Amino acid sequence: FTYIPANRTGNLLYLSGQDARDANGVLIHEGKVGSDLTIEQGREAARQVIINCLAVLKGYLGDLDRVVKIVKLLGFVNSAPGFGDQPYVMNGASDLLVDVFGENGRHARSAIGTSDLPFHTPVEIELIVEIRD
Amino acid sequence: FTYIPANRTGNLLYLSGQDARDANGVLIHEGKVGSDLTIEQGREAARQVIINCLAVLKGYLGDLDRVVKIVKLLGFVNSAPGFGDQPYVMNGASDLLVDVFGENGRHARSAIGTSDLPFHTPVEIELIVEIRD
Amino acid sequence: FTYIPANRTGNLLYLSGQDARDANGVLIHEGKVGSDLTIEQGREAARQVIINCLAVLKGYLGDLDRVVKIVKLLGFVNSAPGFGDQPYVMNGASDLLVDVFGENGRHARSAIGTSDLPFHTPVEIELIVEIRD
Repeated sequence: FTYIPANRTGNLLYLSGQDARDANGVLIHEGKVGSDLTIEQGREAARQVIINCLAVLKGYLGDLDRVVKIVKLLGFVNSAPGFGDQPYVMNGASDLLVDVFGENGRHARSAIGTSDLPFHTPVEIELIVEIRD
Repeated sequence: FTYIPANRTGNLLYLSGQDARDANGVLIHEGKVGSDLTIEQGREAARQVIINCLAVLKGYLGDLDRVVKIVKLLGFVNSAPGFGDQPYVMNGASDLLVDVFGENGRHARSAIGTSDLPFHTPVEIELIVEIRD
Repeated sequence: FTYIPANRTGNLLYLSGQDARDANGVLIHEGKVGSDLTIEQGREAARQVIINCLAVLKGYLGDLDRVVKIVKLLGFVNSAPGFGDQPYVMNGASDLLVDVFGENGRHARSAIGTSDLPFHTPVEIELIVEIRD
């Protein structure tokens, strides 16, 4: 593979965009929020994306205690035409980060709608994380 | 709230994506550039987004003199099908940053078109800013 | 110009989004992957975008030997409705980075689909690069 799940520079770890697949590699939901999926299903997908980010973090760091803080979340919602509630979908991601990391999980965030995402995942998210050795 | 308007790591400040609302919380324009809105209206929206970024910066830093430079702008334009003039829209943002910060306001930038944005804002922008104590 | 092709903070260089134009400033392909263009043509476009990123790097650094590593790639694919193979398109970019930089070219990555990009480029990419003096 020419790209990798996470890449470090200084004390920042950049995570590759994760999608909403489960431990078996199957998307838990598929398609566009606002037509194929409800907002609640979109939120579940966003939560699953963060579970996958946590798995990447655990794999890279060994121990999630090495996370200093979640710096930044950039999230894309596969959106039905006219859908404008991307922030409510993305709360499924943000809420889980704070559940796991507390105050250090509060992050800067952008929630963007788009027309298409890889393999029809409803949500894709990339994180920037400050880490310690 | 689980996400915050700005988050610092080292001497970098990551701003959350801002939209085109005014001081009363109302979007100054709404919808897609190239159909609902002209390029000029899109540019006004992009300028308003930066006004909101400046408010976030002022709120976080207390004083805009603590800005060393605007490092990076990532901007999304809510685009009518076939619209390809996103850079002209985004100039409304870039021009204001240079008006305010001079040479230190010149930034790396990506201007991206998309089909949908939160609450039908015509423009959403996130900034990375280098700051001093 | 109010934005610049590359902007440095610390030992990170942020590149502005590049498109698929050739040395004469003409897009080598134009339009949406999955309708106007095949995946293979999209991959060629992604490769061309990286050639343009390398030109920006060379212009800024003088010598590509000053690249420590490619940290992060954020890439957008102008996608026909229903197209979900953005990662295969983006491999045209990732593969070239590893061809040029070897292990140091392996990067974190997000591949995002979108409905419209500037001047109908099929691919737009921004890079974050760690550099040395």
